[in-house]
Amino acid sequence: MALSEFELIERYFAGRRAVAPNVLLGIGDDCALLKVPPGMTLAVSVDTSIAGVHFPDDMSPADVGYRSLAVNLSDLAAMGAQPSWFTLALTISRADEAWLSEFSAGLFELAERFSLPLVGGDVTRGPLSISIQVGGLIPDGKALLRSGARAGDAVYATGSLGDAAAALALRGDAQAGPSHRELFGRLHRPTPRIEAGMVLRDLASACIDVSDGLVADLGHVLKRSGVGARIELQCLPRSAAFRELAEQFAEPDALVLGGGDDYELCCTVPPEREVLLQARFAELQCPITRIGRVEAEPGLRCVDARGEDVPLRDAGYRHF
Amino acid sequence: MALSEFELIERYFAGRRAVAPNVLLGIGDDCALLKVPPGMTLAVSVDTSIAGVHFPDDMSPADVGYRSLAVNLSDLAAMGAQPSWFTLALTISRADEAWLSEFSAGLFELAERFSLPLVGGDVTRGPLSISIQVGGLIPDGKALLRSGARAGDAVYATGSLGDAAAALALRGDAQAGPSHRELFGRLHRPTPRIEAGMVLRDLASACIDVSDGLVADLGHVLKRSGVGARIELQCLPRSAAFRELAEQFAEPDALVLGGGDDYELCCTVPPEREVLLQARFAELQCPITRIGRVEAEPGLRCVDARGEDVPLRDAGYRHF
Repeated sequence: MALSEFELIERYFAGRRAVAPNVLLGIGDDCALLKVPPGMTLAVSVDTSIAGVHFPDDMSPADVGYRSLAVNLSDLAAMGAQPSWFTLALTISRADEAWLSEFSAGLFELAERFSLPLVGGDVTRGPLSISIQVGGLIPDGKALLRSGARAGDAVYATGSLGDAAAALALRGDAQAGPSHRELFGRLHRPTPRIEAGMVLRDLASACIDVSDGLVADLGHVLKRSGVGARIELQCLPRSAAFRELAEQFAEPDALVLGGGDDYELCCTVPPEREVLLQARFAELQCPITRIGRVEAEPGLRCVDARGEDVPLRDAGYRHF
Repeated sequence: MALSEFELIERYFAGRRAVAPNVLLGIGDDCALLKVPPGMTLAVSVDTSIAGVHFPDDMSPADVGYRSLAVNLSDLAAMGAQPSWFTLALTISRADEAWLSEFSAGLFELAERFSLPLVGGDVTRGPLSISIQVGGLIPDGKALLRSGARAGDAVYATGSLGDAAAALALRGDAQAGPSHRELFGRLHRPTPRIEAGMVLRDLASACIDVSDGLVADLGHVLKRSGVGARIELQCLPRSAAFRELAEQFAEPDALVLGGGDDYELCCTVPPEREVLLQARFAELQCPITRIGRVEAEPGLRCVDARGEDVPLRDAGYRHF
């Protein structure tokens, strides 16, 4: 039985109405109505995920739902925003109820972790594409920009780098041990570093999320800030799973330096705040690692354990 | 020469940075940063337009750009909101510079009419799809909802109905006179009734935009308000172009009752405000026509000039 667009929205999406303090009106009218409390700034971001481009065609519908929201929340994390609401523009080739049921389960699993209400959207027919817009709140003047890095600041990264790229490199490899599964979990269900971003509001001078790879994303911060940086290859954080499987990768360092899709935060921190940063992240139980230093000379440089330059490729995913 | 995503955004989109009072930060960081002034509510809507579904494959890129934004602004109009900003998630199969140049020209032609800044977005590779999200502002408590219609209210429609559906019915007809061109203009470049919506904030009890056809959209208002209505077929506003070409259509009344894509406003108005409504719309030089009356009995009824019931089909575009 074919579902109408209205039935489909009611069954899989509108029924998940969340009560949220700043939502006056959610799904069901021409617009959602939202409040932004006094003293707060609204942060908005939109990202589209397309099968075969942003996620593998064989990813489970639940992971597609989870990941599509996670990559948007990661943009809020990078600004230090607290998630407030989201909208969903979903394009699907047909009203496949099993797919919709799993997709919405994965989507709302993550949404509910942040008590994030779906306030509006649109379901249309066409090739699978998920466009999500998130809104978040930041105290006025506290947003983490890309443009604030200064020479002398330390460069930090949360969590570990290269895991998602490693999972893509392992694809098709049948030896699925626990480390494999951990890396695939990082690709399929990345953790948006929301709490870390909110803590960094009072500590970091600049911040970005690592979606296109460390070299590309840190490069955006440096360019926007008019500075450069030197990072140390042996300091880049690698997970235990990554290290266990590293010999299977043709170029493990390239995965850590250039691999995208980790959705960790990379930030710059003035030296006088580094002690406080370590203490706050210990409280948060979120790993954070110093990977280098901001320098006045533009450009990004990387040195290995012997202090020799590591050549950096023009990295980052290119759509066109 | 292939453009990177960053070059493409810079060349066709980010360069059109508008200065706008409530935009603290536009394109270029992880999120846009926006203010909502005290006493104002934020209205947000998202709509996706897909080639071959929401617009004909042969529509000019400039019209695609114009129309994709217009249909979103129409949702703001239906709530009585003043447009404040928009984001664009654009999926294109390749970086065709001629297409992008024309698309962005059409998009910004309409955006600039409302001094509407593009504050963020995403360009990805895939089958052509345009997902736009708009944000608008409404004084607290003044939003026009679908749920406020009461028995005894008059039902009004702005402009004329059936024009866009008539253009679709004429498609392929080579006799392209001025009336043809006018109807195609209504399909390709619908006018979002922003000013009318803002005036209706103080006058209407309920409002919706006619995107799926009068029967379907007025039906949403009636259902949400728990009432019914009787409309008069001969009162439904038809444009001069429509009337001139009416004999070419197999069922002209069906186009007026059920044709979508006109993006006029349909609203309900308490009788004591009707005189003021007429005066305010005369000032605005926006046509508005009384088409019927809200009744306590649920359901939508339509009568012809002889007072006989006109059968209504379950109208509205069905995606699935």
